[in-house]
Amino acid sequence: MSYDNLTLHTDKYQINMMYAHWIQGSLNEKAVFEVYFRKLPFGNGYAVFAGLERIVQYIQSLSFGEEEIAYLQSQEENYKEEFLEELRKFQFTGNLNAVQEGTLVFPNEPLIRVEARIFEAQLIETAVLNFMNYQTLIATKASRIKQVAPHDILLEFGTRRAQEADAAIWGARAAYLAGFHATSNMRAGMLFGIPAKGTHAHAWVQAHDSEEEAFRKYAESLPDQVTLLVDTYDTLKSGVPNAIRIARHLESMGKRMNGIRLDSGDLAYLSQQARKMLDEAGFPYVQIVASNDLDENIIFNLKGQEARIDVWGVGTQLITAADQPALGGVYKLVAREKDGEYAPVIKISGNPEKVSNPGFKHVYRIINRQTGKAEADYLALQHEQDIINGTKIKLFDPIHPYIHKFIDNYDAVPLLQPIFEDGRLVYELPALKQIREYHENQKKLFWPQYLRKLNPEMYRVNLSSAAWQLKMDLIHEHQM
Amino acid sequence: MSYDNLTLHTDKYQINMMYAHWIQGSLNEKAVFEVYFRKLPFGNGYAVFAGLERIVQYIQSLSFGEEEIAYLQSQEENYKEEFLEELRKFQFTGNLNAVQEGTLVFPNEPLIRVEARIFEAQLIETAVLNFMNYQTLIATKASRIKQVAPHDILLEFGTRRAQEADAAIWGARAAYLAGFHATSNMRAGMLFGIPAKGTHAHAWVQAHDSEEEAFRKYAESLPDQVTLLVDTYDTLKSGVPNAIRIARHLESMGKRMNGIRLDSGDLAYLSQQARKMLDEAGFPYVQIVASNDLDENIIFNLKGQEARIDVWGVGTQLITAADQPALGGVYKLVAREKDGEYAPVIKISGNPEKVSNPGFKHVYRIINRQTGKAEADYLALQHEQDIINGTKIKLFDPIHPYIHKFIDNYDAVPLLQPIFEDGRLVYELPALKQIREYHENQKKLFWPQYLRKLNPEMYRVNLSSAAWQLKMDLIHEHQM
Repeated sequence: MSYDNLTLHTDKYQINMMYAHWIQGSLNEKAVFEVYFRKLPFGNGYAVFAGLERIVQYIQSLSFGEEEIAYLQSQEENYKEEFLEELRKFQFTGNLNAVQEGTLVFPNEPLIRVEARIFEAQLIETAVLNFMNYQTLIATKASRIKQVAPHDILLEFGTRRAQEADAAIWGARAAYLAGFHATSNMRAGMLFGIPAKGTHAHAWVQAHDSEEEAFRKYAESLPDQVTLLVDTYDTLKSGVPNAIRIARHLESMGKRMNGIRLDSGDLAYLSQQARKMLDEAGFPYVQIVASNDLDENIIFNLKGQEARIDVWGVGTQLITAADQPALGGVYKLVAREKDGEYAPVIKISGNPEKVSNPGFKHVYRIINRQTGKAEADYLALQHEQDIINGTKIKLFDPIHPYIHKFIDNYDAVPLLQPIFEDGRLVYELPALKQIREYHENQKKLFWPQYLRKLNPEMYRVNLSSAAWQLKMDLIHEHQM
Repeated sequence: MSYDNLTLHTDKYQINMMYAHWIQGSLNEKAVFEVYFRKLPFGNGYAVFAGLERIVQYIQSLSFGEEEIAYLQSQEENYKEEFLEELRKFQFTGNLNAVQEGTLVFPNEPLIRVEARIFEAQLIETAVLNFMNYQTLIATKASRIKQVAPHDILLEFGTRRAQEADAAIWGARAAYLAGFHATSNMRAGMLFGIPAKGTHAHAWVQAHDSEEEAFRKYAESLPDQVTLLVDTYDTLKSGVPNAIRIARHLESMGKRMNGIRLDSGDLAYLSQQARKMLDEAGFPYVQIVASNDLDENIIFNLKGQEARIDVWGVGTQLITAADQPALGGVYKLVAREKDGEYAPVIKISGNPEKVSNPGFKHVYRIINRQTGKAEADYLALQHEQDIINGTKIKLFDPIHPYIHKFIDNYDAVPLLQPIFEDGRLVYELPALKQIREYHENQKKLFWPQYLRKLNPEMYRVNLSSAAWQLKMDLIHEHQM
């Protein structure tokens, strides 16, 4: 089974539309699609874009093999043989632009723009959304957690509760790029170079006649990496005192114990008591690791209660983004080739925020030169040059256009980078560590009120006057 | 990159424990682990076991390749070369028993039992939980949806919002085995033989000068598979009337249109109006498909409002199990080899429901011979024979043991089937269609009060007197 071929990782309706375009002879018409989401997850003030590396690998390896073709032949639609021939030679020949992984992004701005034969652009919609939606969701969740514990060590521990194997590794990667320090998943460690961390389970303790014996044997086996799980029987009566014995033994060998791990009970109280016991025994360097259904709210509250926790192991709540397990990213047609030119296209909806922004667009991040901070993201049509020239521009709310201001002393940073040009990869994928640093620096561009966990200020995503006018014109046209 | 090798799809602490067992010479000691969950998801009365096929494939393909070994060599733990040699020849040589996929299962009963060298049993914990937790979660969610629309067609449409690629396909499979009829994901269709279904997107309509032209061209291209999405501009004013024109045209060619799809707006009202328009135009056979963030509660309410929907396309809420995106399945040591025999092992917790049930156990489903219905699931120790002989047994609540009854006219159906014996696969994986039928039949074993969506009755999972006494003895021993 060609389990690793993702070419059919798409919805059937994409294949049906490809077929219909092929039958109608419109398969080579160019189309422009934009990927964006309408609503931020978790009530957060920003999202963290992720998924691009996966998308690049996916696009580069697109290929209908014989198994895929045979499967399509078996479908009740009776796709014609010449169509299957067309698929046999399928490859992505279009342009794809995207924001860099780790970028702070906002609703209703294009994060990925695909400009390709409609035949190709339809095929990739489903996978592009699948990868971007999940990885951006988890990077955003991880970034929220990082916001409440910026100086602590954060470990991603979620594999057993992840939604299958891919989520475990790509989620671990998303967490790392948003500021986590390590993952427990070894495969993620191997594939992406993320530091892998782990201690031992309750089963290690249960597999020995006593907790102390279990601790001693573990420390003998891995004397440089000793973090002991202290809650199998009784954290303060048995676990911590036994761990202290081991720490003492390690010191006698000239070694230092790394830490203890708390995995149940009242983490505020237990960490304070354990800290006191460790300090009094002369082991102020032994760190306290905590795990057990943690998320940004629990961590924030534990810190408010002065829990003495140095390292946070975050599992289920992060890897599934449990309080909102899907990002609603969409892939919308904004322009199509007509008589050799791009005609802008709109999708009307009774729901005003669901009306799409038509036209081939660029996105600029407007940085105020005086403050060095981002003022707004600005969507302009393809041929608008004023923003690049630094001309004074009007920033106005696209829903309430009378709310506006002018800005002229700014830098306009284009967010969409060329990734594929005519099907050729023109982007050098950054190392994961670089992405992580880039993300960390990205946050410095924003005032803290946009970054806070609860009730953040809404960052502006504005349309240029021309882009706004185009939208109004098309709405008007469709309502005639 | 060996992307498809899942051998390192495990937590680092498993490798560390394997290493420590290897160093200590305890790697070959046998251990017995049980997989179970403590709490049903979604407030449901049952869960639907799934994930076994994936687990079987995973175990069969376990192999530390050179890339995995090189990665382990790079770890700061400095695993010794002889340990890596041991890994090079690693394979699963143990026994694994599991309930069949599609079985209705309940809290605190073993769903999988692993009896193996502790070296092997530790490695597989993480992946076994990952696969079982996700697939069981989605099968359970799908079964809930099936309960509210038992006679309608149910389509799984979630790929773009799934948590990465594996979740999309294994979730589609879990939905199908629990009673869904098809998926939109072509790769799931190809790999698992699930029927694949799909129509067209808004982009198809937007890519043409008018909705009617778009509909006509689609119908020309795929005349035997015409389901038209009618909400791009205005469902009742434009979409449905245009669809009716196409239905008429298809009839003139001797063909029948399949359906229309509603994807926004008030689905109750729109489906009633569309039904009326279709019927009055002479197309009572054209089905109405609905999609748009559906779940079992919305479907239940739409049916209560007499929505005229024949086919439900369910996406995000199903594929992510959005209202509870993780099942908390655990893998607990229940017995370990000591002096050549299995010694039962317990995990104590301050939280009474977290205390594990010690000992090597079997699980029987007790079917009342008079009613043909399941009375309880019954956990007995390995050597208890009374249940197999049909002797009168006492069923009592393990938390409140004074609540009890006796039963003697019953069949005891063992739930745990041998899957691997001494590392050899001894189980013939059933075809997915068989699993689906088996699941449908499973439900007939239970009174409806256990199956209802809201506030179901709690089905009994009981310990034999001997298993209960063992637990009490071990708790007592640890509290001395």
